[in-house]
Amino acid sequence: MPGNSFGQIFRITSWGESHGGGVGVVIDGCPPRIALSPQDIQPDLDRRRPGQSSIVTPRKEADACQILSGVFRGKTLGTPILIWVPNTDARPDAYREMETMYRPSHADFTYQAKYGIRNWEGGGRSSARETIARVAAAAVAKRVLGHLAPGLEVIAWVGQVHRIAVDVDPLKVTPPQVERTPVRCPDPKAANRMIRLIESARADGDSLGGIVECVIRGAPAGLGEPVFDRFEADLAKAMLSLPATKGFEIGSGFEGTRMRGSEHNDPFVMRAGKVHTASNRSGGTQGGITNGEPVLFRIAFKPTATIAKPQKTVTTRGHAAILRARGRHDPCVLPRAVPIVEAMTWLVLIDHWLRQRAQCGSRPRRTRSSR
Amino acid sequence: MPGNSFGQIFRITSWGESHGGGVGVVIDGCPPRIALSPQDIQPDLDRRRPGQSSIVTPRKEADACQILSGVFRGKTLGTPILIWVPNTDARPDAYREMETMYRPSHADFTYQAKYGIRNWEGGGRSSARETIARVAAAAVAKRVLGHLAPGLEVIAWVGQVHRIAVDVDPLKVTPPQVERTPVRCPDPKAANRMIRLIESARADGDSLGGIVECVIRGAPAGLGEPVFDRFEADLAKAMLSLPATKGFEIGSGFEGTRMRGSEHNDPFVMRAGKVHTASNRSGGTQGGITNGEPVLFRIAFKPTATIAKPQKTVTTRGHAAILRARGRHDPCVLPRAVPIVEAMTWLVLIDHWLRQRAQCGSRPRRTRSSR
Amino acid sequence: MPGNSFGQIFRITSWGESHGGGVGVVIDGCPPRIALSPQDIQPDLDRRRPGQSSIVTPRKEADACQILSGVFRGKTLGTPILIWVPNTDARPDAYREMETMYRPSHADFTYQAKYGIRNWEGGGRSSARETIARVAAAAVAKRVLGHLAPGLEVIAWVGQVHRIAVDVDPLKVTPPQVERTPVRCPDPKAANRMIRLIESARADGDSLGGIVECVIRGAPAGLGEPVFDRFEADLAKAMLSLPATKGFEIGSGFEGTRMRGSEHNDPFVMRAGKVHTASNRSGGTQGGITNGEPVLFRIAFKPTATIAKPQKTVTTRGHAAILRARGRHDPCVLPRAVPIVEAMTWLVLIDHWLRQRAQCGSRPRRTRSSR
Amino acid sequence: MPGNSFGQIFRITSWGESHGGGVGVVIDGCPPRIALSPQDIQPDLDRRRPGQSSIVTPRKEADACQILSGVFRGKTLGTPILIWVPNTDARPDAYREMETMYRPSHADFTYQAKYGIRNWEGGGRSSARETIARVAAAAVAKRVLGHLAPGLEVIAWVGQVHRIAVDVDPLKVTPPQVERTPVRCPDPKAANRMIRLIESARADGDSLGGIVECVIRGAPAGLGEPVFDRFEADLAKAMLSLPATKGFEIGSGFEGTRMRGSEHNDPFVMRAGKVHTASNRSGGTQGGITNGEPVLFRIAFKPTATIAKPQKTVTTRGHAAILRARGRHDPCVLPRAVPIVEAMTWLVLIDHWLRQRAQCGSRPRRTRSSR
Repeated sequence: MPGNSFGQIFRITSWGESHGGGVGVVIDGCPPRIALSPQDIQPDLDRRRPGQSSIVTPRKEADACQILSGVFRGKTLGTPILIWVPNTDARPDAYREMETMYRPSHADFTYQAKYGIRNWEGGGRSSARETIARVAAAAVAKRVLGHLAPGLEVIAWVGQVHRIAVDVDPLKVTPPQVERTPVRCPDPKAANRMIRLIESARADGDSLGGIVECVIRGAPAGLGEPVFDRFEADLAKAMLSLPATKGFEIGSGFEGTRMRGSEHNDPFVMRAGKVHTASNRSGGTQGGITNGEPVLFRIAFKPTATIAKPQKTVTTRGHAAILRARGRHDPCVLPRAVPIVEAMTWLVLIDHWLRQRAQCGSRPRRTRSSR
Repeated sequence: MPGNSFGQIFRITSWGESHGGGVGVVIDGCPPRIALSPQDIQPDLDRRRPGQSSIVTPRKEADACQILSGVFRGKTLGTPILIWVPNTDARPDAYREMETMYRPSHADFTYQAKYGIRNWEGGGRSSARETIARVAAAAVAKRVLGHLAPGLEVIAWVGQVHRIAVDVDPLKVTPPQVERTPVRCPDPKAANRMIRLIESARADGDSLGGIVECVIRGAPAGLGEPVFDRFEADLAKAMLSLPATKGFEIGSGFEGTRMRGSEHNDPFVMRAGKVHTASNRSGGTQGGITNGEPVLFRIAFKPTATIAKPQKTVTTRGHAAILRARGRHDPCVLPRAVPIVEAMTWLVLIDHWLRQRAQCGSRPRRTRSSR
Repeated sequence: MPGNSFGQIFRITSWGESHGGGVGVVIDGCPPRIALSPQDIQPDLDRRRPGQSSIVTPRKEADACQILSGVFRGKTLGTPILIWVPNTDARPDAYREMETMYRPSHADFTYQAKYGIRNWEGGGRSSARETIARVAAAAVAKRVLGHLAPGLEVIAWVGQVHRIAVDVDPLKVTPPQVERTPVRCPDPKAANRMIRLIESARADGDSLGGIVECVIRGAPAGLGEPVFDRFEADLAKAMLSLPATKGFEIGSGFEGTRMRGSEHNDPFVMRAGKVHTASNRSGGTQGGITNGEPVLFRIAFKPTATIAKPQKTVTTRGHAAILRARGRHDPCVLPRAVPIVEAMTWLVLIDHWLRQRAQCGSRPRRTRSSR
Repeated sequence: MPGNSFGQIFRITSWGESHGGGVGVVIDGCPPRIALSPQDIQPDLDRRRPGQSSIVTPRKEADACQILSGVFRGKTLGTPILIWVPNTDARPDAYREMETMYRPSHADFTYQAKYGIRNWEGGGRSSARETIARVAAAAVAKRVLGHLAPGLEVIAWVGQVHRIAVDVDPLKVTPPQVERTPVRCPDPKAANRMIRLIESARADGDSLGGIVECVIRGAPAGLGEPVFDRFEADLAKAMLSLPATKGFEIGSGFEGTRMRGSEHNDPFVMRAGKVHTASNRSGGTQGGITNGEPVLFRIAFKPTATIAKPQKTVTTRGHAAILRARGRHDPCVLPRAVPIVEAMTWLVLIDHWLRQRAQCGSRPRRTRSSR
């Protein structure tokens, strides 16, 4: 299968370039009779939209979505849902130099190497604008799971920008805490420092990276398809499929490699007649299957590749050159990455939830007795 | 699709439990007319086999493979290749307690929660023994790529055990350096310290985790299928599909989040008439597509869940209990994880190589001119 | 995978309903650098368009296509191609009765039974209007194969309407002969009789069925993926996925069941240094793989389910009722089925051509020596 | 995906050649906790086994199956089930001439053209022996559906041999009627004539073709995934993927093309509070989805390609030659095709049943009220 589809049963196909007719998604396999309208999708698109604040790209896009199929009188039909977001503020001229130069740490060269052609207007397909498709599809997934798995929550936040890290309790963090600041960090003090650092990076014509943390709360036990489609394997793939990501870890992650088994294992305990673990270094999955505890993971984002400082590169003809990027960009992608990380998480959740229903039938239970 | 297949064109399906008829794999889509015999596969199986040294599980398995189909007179037919490794040293009795108890940080409970049944003899499907299927399939992939992409190399090694880390030059490490010690760490000094630490952990009835590092050298530019099947996304999935893995990072990884764009970007330079990058913080991929530089990544493995120390857990009936594990296990999975990490890497490589040939036709080139 | 995608490598996803935003298709996996514009697609859409003549539905749709992604400066990028055809002449009111009644031999009841909801305006997803997606995607496939497999031809025609059958030489029939009459039958005498019969059926408020015949000329040997994705198996699926189809046969088909092996077998002969068959009762495939001879097959289409005559049916509430269909429809779908049959054939061809290249590499040859 | 897998959720991968280690299948996605043992599979394998009577091939194979994985203490685990049937009566020498000659209307030449290599011992992968994999997998599917869809029946029979046709009531035919004679034709008179004709064809060193008819009774409404994976489309593919098949028709089939819409449409009627059709020319599906009526279809099988009479052909070096086939074969494949047609039907049913459960959740109902 080509690479622009994700999911086995709730299957999305992403399409579109940053400059051209727009970007969008087709969702095939959506359960029928779920209430859905553009108004259910727009709020999530607005969260990832550029131009929300002083610390993100000023590109002005309404990112208004249209539903062209799959919905009838406000309800899903079970047929493919086509969601389209036209491009409105495209400025190809701002990218003219990209026609003849490869931007360092961008995909210009690799797309050229792979396809022998590329849309050099704003990064084309490799633009973060493509993530609109994921956010739109996830908004639908969230609606569906609201019916199928009530109580399921996905919350992501900025856990680190450059060297500024926060330490929050993933079991307690709330969406309002995340949305309180434009940097989407639930710790107000750290948030302010991050904002100042991002503004100074922009002033320097430079950029910053960081870490997004995410928690799934209320996930049923039993999600995940060993041996290859383990829940964490599909999460890792989902996250590494996002632009600018360099790493993924779940539960104890890389830190856990420095522990001993006797420290790391999560003892089982009974709580309210259910099997639970006393600790959660596993991060909510064991053997590739969710165990009913919160699923905790972190994603590393590199500093934005587009910077205003002049950079050494080569032309498409193979001559040394100096690139002075124009165009608009984020000095730090982290704040806008938060809704995108949540989106990919919802897409992993709905597909595994439906796969579990397909093979094992029993509607996966949020909590289960031990046997 | 169910979860026991990997790859789109060179597609493998893994089957088997640790106790029962054995484990094996079916490879569908293998190119025809490639010389293949069990002798081509056995050496790789021997590298992952238990009982190789004092620091791994003493379970004695010949792990001798048989090819039941897809090969005729020593050559692949292009039809499905069935490889089978019977179980010979199964000792179900050694696992009796698993029938009634959930081992902490193992998959006993989650398999029960998902399927409502489990093979409690030695972990059944969740046993690391399943990785035989991956190693066997990868041995075939390696043979095929030996013809299609000569010069392609995949080398993994133990980069860290507990707190003992090594710093090797991934561009220079060689297989003999890795195989020199049973711990598969190319730095002799660190290797000895690791071995002593592993032996002491075993003496304590405890276990250790660590990090495996891997490099792909000689990969052509152009491998990877944006936007979801990015090369690093499929690598991440492949690695997180391995037992005991908790994290994946490529190139600068989590460390790179603390850099500025101006420090992190890899400038393009011309070398011998080809486009290269002066640094390689990208880790060999940009925009999800290989750029012809070495692909560098690291995988976090948790400490082995099976330990000899008594542990608190619950029974399948929901009563608190103390588990005293018997059975055989590795105090540290890292040495045996090395060939398995290499195996998954070969499987990602061959599938993406064939996918590139399918869509873009041109046999992907190892190095390429700028246009 | 849900049911709205077709193809493994050149993968299309069809979307849209007969009433609503329109219908369209996403093509993923299209080879890059192929010249493509809406003008390359429109002629094929015009061939299937309603309102072309007195013997088809008068529904007036421009069926003008737009390409929203995947093409840059007139060439394919290798990224997903989104093609959209808006609905312009939708008249939901003409279908009011469908809200409360199930039309006999239509999909109203089965969609309701499957999804618990349906778009009752004009048949929604089950409308033949959906085939626009297939024709548009096939127009792209045809362009691609024009580069990859020059000399490849696909020609379909109406071989029978009701009891009027023609006997043409599939090796000689030409597109102009097919297009000469609105009924798309290359035999002028039969064509005139068919037209008169169709007009009388319309006058009676009744409808007619028939058979479309199709030939692939210039296909290379080696296409087809045993054992399940045999070339003829995928052709059969492609054709039975079209509305109103009731049967498929290849080569000698059902007639061949009355022959003996000694009469039916196709002896091999050498011609111009190539292996050929003296006869072609196999219909161009043996063992599920093309043998280089013309591929010949026939598809049965039932009489249009929508007729003007009053019919007995039941309401959605389960009461007996009489349906008097309004809305617009074809008294005979055969003429418009011709381009649709060709479209599905092109989609099967390109996918198998690319699959063969993926696994076996050698660009499939149009004719080959015996070894 | 390569071509040796079938099904999306209940996914089988067939492997093996007629000469070599044996043939078998891996089933991935089988629901857990279903009672299963080799004894549940063997009876179906025995029905397709060679050497059952005087009218089929004398090849003597026990076709005894082994289950190597996926079953624990007599129940399915939900993990991959590997079923293996070793080859025991292989006689490669009997096929020596196939090394240098292409058998007319066999797959020798096309496999050579596709892969550039072939197992010429007994047809290798293209042998009907491969269908063992399908029958074994279907025996498991039948067990599973026995739990999920009680009352579901699949019955096939020989409806025609050469020019001898029968006319039975598909709603009444029973398995004992089918098994009463070795030719598997439920009409005793026709059966005797068929047997005599087959014996005379064998005496002539010739072979015969015919038609297998099949009915699905008790299928729920709602199975089928428009627009491409329509129920009849997947049935057609399943049947055309069988060796020696040349055609498929459902309901009125090719005969229905000679009717008018007013004759062909199936009026809806209420019966016992359920929506039914007064006639069933649709053959149990409308718009690609089952409507709850019996599903009726017919498959054309060509006369066996292997005949004892001398035949003209060419050698692999391109020289004219005369083939005198030795080896063992069926003068008429129809009797043994019956269980294979049933097997493919079960495989289509279980996959669509599980797909419906995945997307629409509600356990598909055997009969349903109108709304």
